[in-house]
Amino acid sequence: MPAGADNGRSALTAKLTLEYHGAGFSGWARQSGARTVQEEVERALATVRREPVPLTVAGRTDAGVHAQGQVASHPGTATSAYALNSLLPPDVRALASDVVSEGFSARHDALSRTYRYRVQPGQWPRVMELGRSLHWRYAMDRGALDACAALLLGVHDYTAFTRSRTTHTHFERTVLRSEWIEEADGVLGFWIEADAFLRSMVRILVGTMLTVAQGRDTVDHFGELLAGRPRAQAGDTVPAHGLYLQSVRYGEPETTRILGSP
Amino acid sequence: MPAGADNGRSALTAKLTLEYHGAGFSGWARQSGARTVQEEVERALATVRREPVPLTVAGRTDAGVHAQGQVASHPGTATSAYALNSLLPPDVRALASDVVSEGFSARHDALSRTYRYRVQPGQWPRVMELGRSLHWRYAMDRGALDACAALLLGVHDYTAFTRSRTTHTHFERTVLRSEWIEEADGVLGFWIEADAFLRSMVRILVGTMLTVAQGRDTVDHFGELLAGRPRAQAGDTVPAHGLYLQSVRYGEPETTRILGSP
Repeated sequence: MPAGADNGRSALTAKLTLEYHGAGFSGWARQSGARTVQEEVERALATVRREPVPLTVAGRTDAGVHAQGQVASHPGTATSAYALNSLLPPDVRALASDVVSEGFSARHDALSRTYRYRVQPGQWPRVMELGRSLHWRYAMDRGALDACAALLLGVHDYTAFTRSRTTHTHFERTVLRSEWIEEADGVLGFWIEADAFLRSMVRILVGTMLTVAQGRDTVDHFGELLAGRPRAQAGDTVPAHGLYLQSVRYGEPETTRILGSP
Repeated sequence: MPAGADNGRSALTAKLTLEYHGAGFSGWARQSGARTVQEEVERALATVRREPVPLTVAGRTDAGVHAQGQVASHPGTATSAYALNSLLPPDVRALASDVVSEGFSARHDALSRTYRYRVQPGQWPRVMELGRSLHWRYAMDRGALDACAALLLGVHDYTAFTRSRTTHTHFERTVLRSEWIEEADGVLGFWIEADAFLRSMVRILVGTMLTVAQGRDTVDHFGELLAGRPRAQAGDTVPAHGLYLQSVRYGEPETTRILGSP
């Protein structure tokens, strides 16, 4: 039982775990005239709750980015995942709906986020990977990729790995996990867990690592970029359709899952 | 060296191995006013060869069906897969281009075709499986599925497993392989290899097996259907987007692969 639950409805917080296919969305955050994940989920919540339910989200994903474990929160009781899924379109899905302690924020209480970026090597892209990974037709030195990934662990300044026009005010981030993992069908997935991410950070990191893996840059230079170099010294931003928000980690262990009817 | 190759160009036959994502196509076969795989591939071939190149195909897949190893043939020399892929749209891909013996026909020389049908069990569909598998929310008794699959081996009359309005004239087919295999993410794939298939055969077989696995029909009754019962006694036709033409087998071992420039 969450603390303060006996004070009534306002003392609870709802935590939603979501997955979505990014292709049909202009990202998470609401914007007029564009289809967004936030709008779809808030509309379904409002229909069930009969009142507006503004969501706080762990990761504001950009247009085209997929999610397999996005987390959003709002004050009040949780809504059943079943009820939400009955109302949501086929490209957004509530994986879980939990009741958590009062004041929980999906954004501020997140200890870390994990992203994955999928790259498909080979001369030609496989048709069933369309929209699910980046096709990379150039050389891809696995040793160079692994060496770059290892350099990210710990605290570094990622100024080179975000847009130069930025609203961010500090650029140090702590990376807890960083590795390339072989998936089915020859796809390589880059997994990175950090306390928080700068805008476009994963996509510029992958673009720069691929430049190194292609032999057009060195692992040493990649390492130097982690000391706060300007954006122009890093590589290209790879496309959104290879990126997945995999999961968000919280310290909060006490949750009550609401999967059935409300 | 294929027999008769010294007689010049007309003595050769080209064999193309193709994959395509079915979502954007009204099937393989050309039809006016619809986008078809045949049309896209013949257009690319005609551009390279500067003459019309009519294709013979191993499996005339229906609208929405995917292929990972479709085979087509035409008289004359082979065109490089590289040249074709430079001209083909992203949802069709030439996997190989081979020179084979004179008179080879992708359709008539095929010893067998292998199809796969992907089913995703669970209460709600996973978003990244959209358009790639059938979502099945009902009970799915794996033992019943395996028992049904085993009954298909050998020669049976598949009248119950094709449309009742049909242009087929005989309904016996020989099944060489028939099994359900677990894939990643909990997806189950039904693999079936046969000398040839009736129209909609795999999709009606899967629909009927799922009815049995759900407990709405028995394995025994499924077995009785294989003796030439009418279509109405079998189950529903499951959707095209779960079906994949995996491969086509030929006796011909002597091929020369043309992957580079022509």
